[in-house]
Amino acid sequence: MASDVEIAAMRRALELASRGPRSRNPQVGSVLLSPAGDVIADGWHHGAGTPHAEIDALSRLPRGAARGATAVVSLEPCNHTGRTGPCAVALIEAGVARVVYALADPGQHSGGGAERLRAAGIEVEGGVLEGEARELLDPWLTSRALGRPHVTVKWAQSLDGRAAAADGTSKWITGSTARADVHRRRAESDAIVVGSGTLLADDPALTARDGDALFPHQPVPVIIGSAPVPEGALVNRHPHAPLVYPTRDLAAVLDDLYDRGLHRVFVEGGPTLASAFVAAGLADRVLAYVAPTLLGGPRAALGDIGVPTISAQRRLDIEAIERLGSDLLIVARPPSESESH
Amino acid sequence: MASDVEIAAMRRALELASRGPRSRNPQVGSVLLSPAGDVIADGWHHGAGTPHAEIDALSRLPRGAARGATAVVSLEPCNHTGRTGPCAVALIEAGVARVVYALADPGQHSGGGAERLRAAGIEVEGGVLEGEARELLDPWLTSRALGRPHVTVKWAQSLDGRAAAADGTSKWITGSTARADVHRRRAESDAIVVGSGTLLADDPALTARDGDALFPHQPVPVIIGSAPVPEGALVNRHPHAPLVYPTRDLAAVLDDLYDRGLHRVFVEGGPTLASAFVAAGLADRVLAYVAPTLLGGPRAALGDIGVPTISAQRRLDIEAIERLGSDLLIVARPPSESESH
Repeated sequence: MASDVEIAAMRRALELASRGPRSRNPQVGSVLLSPAGDVIADGWHHGAGTPHAEIDALSRLPRGAARGATAVVSLEPCNHTGRTGPCAVALIEAGVARVVYALADPGQHSGGGAERLRAAGIEVEGGVLEGEARELLDPWLTSRALGRPHVTVKWAQSLDGRAAAADGTSKWITGSTARADVHRRRAESDAIVVGSGTLLADDPALTARDGDALFPHQPVPVIIGSAPVPEGALVNRHPHAPLVYPTRDLAAVLDDLYDRGLHRVFVEGGPTLASAFVAAGLADRVLAYVAPTLLGGPRAALGDIGVPTISAQRRLDIEAIERLGSDLLIVARPPSESESH
Repeated sequence: MASDVEIAAMRRALELASRGPRSRNPQVGSVLLSPAGDVIADGWHHGAGTPHAEIDALSRLPRGAARGATAVVSLEPCNHTGRTGPCAVALIEAGVARVVYALADPGQHSGGGAERLRAAGIEVEGGVLEGEARELLDPWLTSRALGRPHVTVKWAQSLDGRAAAADGTSKWITGSTARADVHRRRAESDAIVVGSGTLLADDPALTARDGDALFPHQPVPVIIGSAPVPEGALVNRHPHAPLVYPTRDLAAVLDDLYDRGLHRVFVEGGPTLASAFVAAGLADRVLAYVAPTLLGGPRAALGDIGVPTISAQRRLDIEAIERLGSDLLIVARPPSESESH
């Protein structure tokens, strides 16, 4: 059992973890506690090529000062020699007496750290605030477990599920708060995906904007479909050159994005592409921005998703409901086997 | 300005008001305060033919005991001799020094109470907790102001706005908590309306059920449309004989229901009828039960509501969002000129 002090330290470790960049590497934080339960150091992973969280924390102490300490870390210490040595070994060498972690490392190569620590006589306790850690690392865990990018499918809809009025007009169904939220989430993604039909119809810039400025991190624009990108399209002025896939094979597109290190994919539509991702079971998270308005008519935000009868419905778990101005954001995902990650 | 004690008394008056039956008469509560600010009596309106709230409160005191008191009442005291005498006169005769009310009486015949009280030298303060009182009396105010029933249009939908899967199957999109909520709201209505097509397709009982039992108050079943009611239809076993209107003239149906004293109308669908009420601007309140599931396909919960282009969209104000089991209930209504009631 983790003590209250350890649980509080884990909360802090998670907070520190979230300061790290979202990237191919997981966001991890760590807190070192003295045998009396005082915080003696903390740290987090600052991104690929930099020390892991535990090492970052240990590096803030003089040699030997971690002897007998408890290391609280939001992800199981790795057992893997990459650009840095295995954290499990570093903790053993530092002489820590106990390790508390939140989430087991699902990696084939990096996992096994807990075992290695136990073999060295160190007390190990896993699963502390596991839910919170899972929430933080959900996209990383998905791409790690499935070997493909984590996919968020986003759409804006009226309460009755339409993306536009009968004549196709839709600006703006949702308000400025909701649109700002979309840009913030774009900036947290590695790639932003639209169908080639939407590109032709809307000429989107596919940048992540903070008001009039660009966010420092820009997702790579990705266009799926057979319609060619017009020379004057706004997307050609994007900081990243667009990736164009004239195919309907979404799995193949995702494989290629994964190989390019684009692990957090944000699908923006239109309805045909969003429906295709849902139909293919490739929507790990759904963001429905719901405007308090009724439109009726033929232009649904989702089209055919391959549900012929009610028993084939795509049930979701609602993760969050946020009010954004007068709009709602409903965050949902398929009931996951994530418990078995 | 109302004092804190008077505002607290108004809160209690509103709570008492809600104990009264929802009917053709408004729900009203009243609290009598001594000059020192102590509660000396309270009361509420128990239904048509029984004393109004102020009279109910006064009747609990010995004659003369209300002299100099403040009467706090959730609706402007009436100035109208119906089955009971005008409350304004009763308050004047009881010798109250001050009257505080929440909502002005919009009735042509019953209004004017505040004026009459003032003319008798009584201090009068209106508009105290007016918003709360308006919320409680919304259906009554609507029917009073418009001379037609208050109409609630309810539907159940998937997150993407579908009422059923492609083959028409829909049982159950929403869960038992949402369905229980529907039955409770049916029991608060005077009439429950379906289209004749839905009657044929679903054979609904159109009763308000509390588990397996019937609620004491049952709405009158109303069927709109040209398809005849089959002899063996469940609705023929309803405690009330169904009213059948083989017409598309919704306003005429509402007029007739109003004349029959059915002032709170609950429209249950199907999609064609719900869309017709929305298109006609006859939906005073919308209840969308949203199940966390995706269906796609052609069976939208709302069909054509006469919105050719985005500027004609039917904006709504969200009044409430409730989680009912794993479902959501979104309560919304057209932006009202209710402020000008």
